Amino acid sequence: MLLHLSTWSEVEQFLKRNQTIVIPIGSNEQHGPTGLLGTDWLCPEIICREAEKQADILVAPTFNIGMAQHHLGFAGTISLRPSTFIAAIVDWTRSLARHGFEKILFLNGHGGNIASIEAAFSEIYAEASFAGRRAGFAMKLCNWWDLEGVGELAREQFPTGHGAHATPSEIAITQWAFSDAIKYADYAPRIAPSGPIREALDFRARYPDGRMGSDPGQATPEKGRALVELAARSLAAELAAFGSEPVPA
Amino acid sequence: MLLHLSTWSEVEQFLKRNQTIVIPIGSNEQHGPTGLLGTDWLCPEIICREAEKQADILVAPTFNIGMAQHHLGFAGTISLRPSTFIAAIVDWTRSLARHGFEKILFLNGHGGNIASIEAAFSEIYAEASFAGRRAGFAMKLCNWWDLEGVGELAREQFPTGHGAHATPSEIAITQWAFSDAIKYADYAPRIAPSGPIREALDFRARYPDGRMGSDPGQATPEKGRALVELAARSLAAELAAFGSEPVPA
Amino acid sequence: MLLHLSTWSEVEQFLKRNQTIVIPIGSNEQHGPTGLLGTDWLCPEIICREAEKQADILVAPTFNIGMAQHHLGFAGTISLRPSTFIAAIVDWTRSLARHGFEKILFLNGHGGNIASIEAAFSEIYAEASFAGRRAGFAMKLCNWWDLEGVGELAREQFPTGHGAHATPSEIAITQWAFSDAIKYADYAPRIAPSGPIREALDFRARYPDGRMGSDPGQATPEKGRALVELAARSLAAELAAFGSEPVPA
Amino acid sequence: MLLHLSTWSEVEQFLKRNQTIVIPIGSNEQHGPTGLLGTDWLCPEIICREAEKQADILVAPTFNIGMAQHHLGFAGTISLRPSTFIAAIVDWTRSLARHGFEKILFLNGHGGNIASIEAAFSEIYAEASFAGRRAGFAMKLCNWWDLEGVGELAREQFPTGHGAHATPSEIAITQWAFSDAIKYADYAPRIAPSGPIREALDFRARYPDGRMGSDPGQATPEKGRALVELAARSLAAELAAFGSEPVPA
Amino acid sequence: MLLHLSTWSEVEQFLKRNQTIVIPIGSNEQHGPTGLLGTDWLCPEIICREAEKQADILVAPTFNIGMAQHHLGFAGTISLRPSTFIAAIVDWTRSLARHGFEKILFLNGHGGNIASIEAAFSEIYAEASFAGRRAGFAMKLCNWWDLEGVGELAREQFPTGHGAHATPSEIAITQWAFSDAIKYADYAPRIAPSGPIREALDFRARYPDGRMGSDPGQATPEKGRALVELAARSLAAELAAFGSEPVPA
Amino acid sequence: MLLHLSTWSEVEQFLKRNQTIVIPIGSNEQHGPTGLLGTDWLCPEIICREAEKQADILVAPTFNIGMAQHHLGFAGTISLRPSTFIAAIVDWTRSLARHGFEKILFLNGHGGNIASIEAAFSEIYAEASFAGRRAGFAMKLCNWWDLEGVGELAREQFPTGHGAHATPSEIAITQWAFSDAIKYADYAPRIAPSGPIREALDFRARYPDGRMGSDPGQATPEKGRALVELAARSLAAELAAFGSEPVPA
Repeated sequence: MLLHLSTWSEVEQFLKRNQTIVIPIGSNEQHGPTGLLGTDWLCPEIICREAEKQADILVAPTFNIGMAQHHLGFAGTISLRPSTFIAAIVDWTRSLARHGFEKILFLNGHGGNIASIEAAFSEIYAEASFAGRRAGFAMKLCNWWDLEGVGELAREQFPTGHGAHATPSEIAITQWAFSDAIKYADYAPRIAPSGPIREALDFRARYPDGRMGSDPGQATPEKGRALVELAARSLAAELAAFGSEPVPA
Repeated sequence: MLLHLSTWSEVEQFLKRNQTIVIPIGSNEQHGPTGLLGTDWLCPEIICREAEKQADILVAPTFNIGMAQHHLGFAGTISLRPSTFIAAIVDWTRSLARHGFEKILFLNGHGGNIASIEAAFSEIYAEASFAGRRAGFAMKLCNWWDLEGVGELAREQFPTGHGAHATPSEIAITQWAFSDAIKYADYAPRIAPSGPIREALDFRARYPDGRMGSDPGQATPEKGRALVELAARSLAAELAAFGSEPVPA
Repeated sequence: MLLHLSTWSEVEQFLKRNQTIVIPIGSNEQHGPTGLLGTDWLCPEIICREAEKQADILVAPTFNIGMAQHHLGFAGTISLRPSTFIAAIVDWTRSLARHGFEKILFLNGHGGNIASIEAAFSEIYAEASFAGRRAGFAMKLCNWWDLEGVGELAREQFPTGHGAHATPSEIAITQWAFSDAIKYADYAPRIAPSGPIREALDFRARYPDGRMGSDPGQATPEKGRALVELAARSLAAELAAFGSEPVPA
Repeated sequence: MLLHLSTWSEVEQFLKRNQTIVIPIGSNEQHGPTGLLGTDWLCPEIICREAEKQADILVAPTFNIGMAQHHLGFAGTISLRPSTFIAAIVDWTRSLARHGFEKILFLNGHGGNIASIEAAFSEIYAEASFAGRRAGFAMKLCNWWDLEGVGELAREQFPTGHGAHATPSEIAITQWAFSDAIKYADYAPRIAPSGPIREALDFRARYPDGRMGSDPGQATPEKGRALVELAARSLAAELAAFGSEPVPA
Repeated sequence: MLLHLSTWSEVEQFLKRNQTIVIPIGSNEQHGPTGLLGTDWLCPEIICREAEKQADILVAPTFNIGMAQHHLGFAGTISLRPSTFIAAIVDWTRSLARHGFEKILFLNGHGGNIASIEAAFSEIYAEASFAGRRAGFAMKLCNWWDLEGVGELAREQFPTGHGAHATPSEIAITQWAFSDAIKYADYAPRIAPSGPIREALDFRARYPDGRMGSDPGQATPEKGRALVELAARSLAAELAAFGSEPVPA
Repeated sequence: MLLHLSTWSEVEQFLKRNQTIVIPIGSNEQHGPTGLLGTDWLCPEIICREAEKQADILVAPTFNIGMAQHHLGFAGTISLRPSTFIAAIVDWTRSLARHGFEKILFLNGHGGNIASIEAAFSEIYAEASFAGRRAGFAMKLCNWWDLEGVGELAREQFPTGHGAHATPSEIAITQWAFSDAIKYADYAPRIAPSGPIREALDFRARYPDGRMGSDPGQATPEKGRALVELAARSLAAELAAFGSEPVPA
């Protein structure tokens, strides 16, 4: 069930049988010579929508702008500051908790978001902790590549040159979902360099075409399909498990 | 051109010929017994994507969560606080200005966003104004129902019962775009009541099914198609006009 | 009754019979060659004080600095950022609600404040809405030129050249109230240009003497007197009506 | 010269001969059984306006709401939080510095404001200090009772029972300025108790009628006149001295 | 009892007999040619630890970074902005109040902190005051040089050249506690100049070696020992007195 | 070299030969029945001070309060909110960068800090990235247990029951450094349970004595000595390597 294509009374009905919701969250940022700017929010959105076809889960709208300050040297990147990002997650979470959602899972598509998502969780839990009361709900961060079996499949598909940014696995997923938007380029070097992440000008100097450690030339729509199908099944299982965890009163 | 389906170098190319971008912006909030929770962000997204098929414009990802505190009494509504919303628009705008966009148009789908979008513009311009320097870019707010001719068409289609929330025009647009997600209900009364907007519990007491002044039963996909086609043409014209305004140095 | 010339026990007595208060709110900003920098906060203050002579209403101190970033290119302008302005309105409102005021009306004298006042209302109501509780009070924004009959009178007095900033109606009001501070200038052109509002340097380039669309040369103290008298009567009626609206429990 | 009754070009002229401005700043809070709620912002405003009649000084609008959380147990008190207060002073100061004011003096009427005004100064100077650049302007806090000779006169007028809140000296000043608003009450005890300042309920329990250590029954309009006349002369001298201090380049 | 060398159950035991805690608070900033950068946080820490040997008191970890923007022109200075400082004190205080501490005393070592500590207290109390409830705890600021008898002893030890920054008394205390870190320099002039405090570049121009009004050459470890011993005794008494004050319910 | 025991001119000298600084950072929070509340800030402080005896490194004061909201159910825990923590790291870093430090290494002692430290780095780098300029300095996070060889040694010392909170390795380090403050308790169960981290009441319900997955009974001062000696050597090497990395201009 896609929340944005539902009415409020349909959501109210859903809540009577299930208090778990998944939020696809990513970033809109450069992904090398061939990766789509939306890659990091499209991947979790694609996986959620595939899972939603197979299981009775509720998918929130996509949180599509994330922590991408280091990519601002490349056109099209849009970034929040961590302080803004945290405030926004606080508001999303408060809204959903207000309706009775007790388990809120963020399916994340951007490694750079992890720290700020966890910081946001602390900000939210801290309200209850300072006040000496129960939160009444639990949040969980799950990166799509950490879903059961997905990392293994990606390593099998791309034993070398998977890298850390503009990876062949994420490119493959968007190729499968948006076959009209597959882009081609010569990669030089074939596997991009690796190193630290700092401010945008430093990033562009180190990683001139935007890739980090990856060879996205290995991506194919077919590999993407396999990743999405597995990830969707694992997500449904993850949501079921999270949903059945007791929330202590 | 859809930014999220483009690469950074495609956006860089676009910027050489055109420094204007449009951001669909809305809200995810209850829209009465039959309206989709995503209505207010789907409408500007639908119109932008239609316009993009016909004209060389660049469409940013959709800013999908807005000012919906008053709808929090209905399940599925997600709201930012104005302070969060303003901070997020500051960050989106800084990111785009950083790349060289000189005209940033927000195509808005939610009346409740207007005040906070304009407040955000002041917050952004104030940085330049306090510093005594030029901003280097201009922002503009345009509600889709204010696009050339669109209001007239809606009044013609729905001479009574258009109302202010869950209007037949917005419902019609989503019916056209998501024909699988058309919902039905009996509306009682046919035209919903009108009145002030305050906190969520007050809102739900005044407007029990979520509508304000509207009779969405008049919506049809065909009317939606007409609205979208006109709005898309007007948006393309609006962007061309805005883009050709000089930015004083 | 002027709050600042009352004691706390007089206010406590007032609250037993009346839970409504009016806050004059404006901006301190340039008003063209002849307009006073205080025009936008003086006008609502003048109207409130006139109304207070005739009716049992309570007038708060004047909120005198507003959203004027675009006027910072002209000496004497003082502006808040929207984020500061919102925080201040939150604090004023919390203070008054704490004492038992249930209806808080902002009588506004600056068009540029409207968006940020409404954003502030959302920020305040959102606290109750996220918490799922009643606010316990209602806020209302009323521009003095929108008081019953006032716009009509101004259009009658100034059929052309009323404009949007440094209007003859606001100049007339301050001329009546501060007859020692009437200023004279040649206006060239007689009616100032119109256009968009952006950052301060852009504003000064577009509107070299500070006026927007107006011909303040038409102002006279006598016209100001008529405006104030009508506005004061309408304000008293507005407060009575707002005060008698039920606050749902 | 009163800024709010001047035009922008008059302020521009003033700035050519004088780069100093004074801001009356106070608080709107209960002042015991007979003190006006506006006492703390009225006193500096009264003194500034008296000084302005005698010397070529520029008086900004009054900053009328301050640090009064401890008085919120008494009706009519309006308070900012320190964080809001600091943000507002930052914005006032940036606005004035933008126009070329190099010396900004806050004439303060509320002891409770001192800490937050000084914190605001640090917040403002810190911008320059972190950036390693000159501020380009200087701020100064001056309480009206610390103006040359004023404390001595007050001690002479009120050798006992001056106290710390709702003092006879401040009451006397407002009696002189607002002779129509003189209030009477029996004070029991004649001299109010003293002690610490904490939250509002604690304050009201300790100081049941709102006074701290004072016997305002000693106030007379005539004593107020003497205080204002002396304070106005001293303020003019203070502004001249501050204005002539060099601002290191 | 040093909190950081205790377990949570030891603190829980302490709370059963005593609900008072002392937080050493200072600043890390230049202290002239011979003063340690840590002087302002070391002095209260040294005094607290000495007191803790003699009395059953609980000493929190040291709040070691304060309001030092004006010293940023000298290497090694670390400063918070007042807004950050206030937020941090809010969090420390909420944490301690959560555990049941009813009296929280800040033993301060830096004059520049006073304003922002008091502003923080207002920020904290304001939460209770706006909500119309009791805080449940009290905070107190005590500068170590204001402890009973300490100022008198310092004036006796250093009748001239005590000054305001890098004072011989604070230098003496650190000399006694860190005899391996005693530094020597020629002071020219012997007594440093005095004047206002503004931004960092202004400060360095006025006070070239960092001292303000002081002659630290008079410091000796032996004088430091006397100051610490007296201050420790007075602190224990101060804590006992503060702890025995009733907290009104 | 310990910054807090140095003068500003000593730091200025250091900066001529070395532009790297290390900041010990941790948390003050419960550490089970026998762990010191200061464990997480003491461990990096101890390691830094040991390293400082052997190598020409500069150690900043300790950032001693961190992300501990989940431990607030246990007396003595003090926590910042992530938003406060980020603001403080921004200020520390700006201060140090202002003096010319180009490499700022945070030696961290608390797993719960990792996310918020990385979020703070993004917040800081974002300033440069939005402005399109170089930062001029680099930050690095290093957990003491990740220093070269340290994790291996800990696993060798504690092949089972190391766990995640109140680990025998951190307890051992504080036992070695504070042999007077070694505490004893019976642990039941010997190895504490594991699980998720949420708000404070949830944490206390899951982990009744405060430990997570650990058996601190295995700690000895001698094992602590070995860990500190190795960690100190590795830290010196880490700082040398980080310091010699070029900062691109």
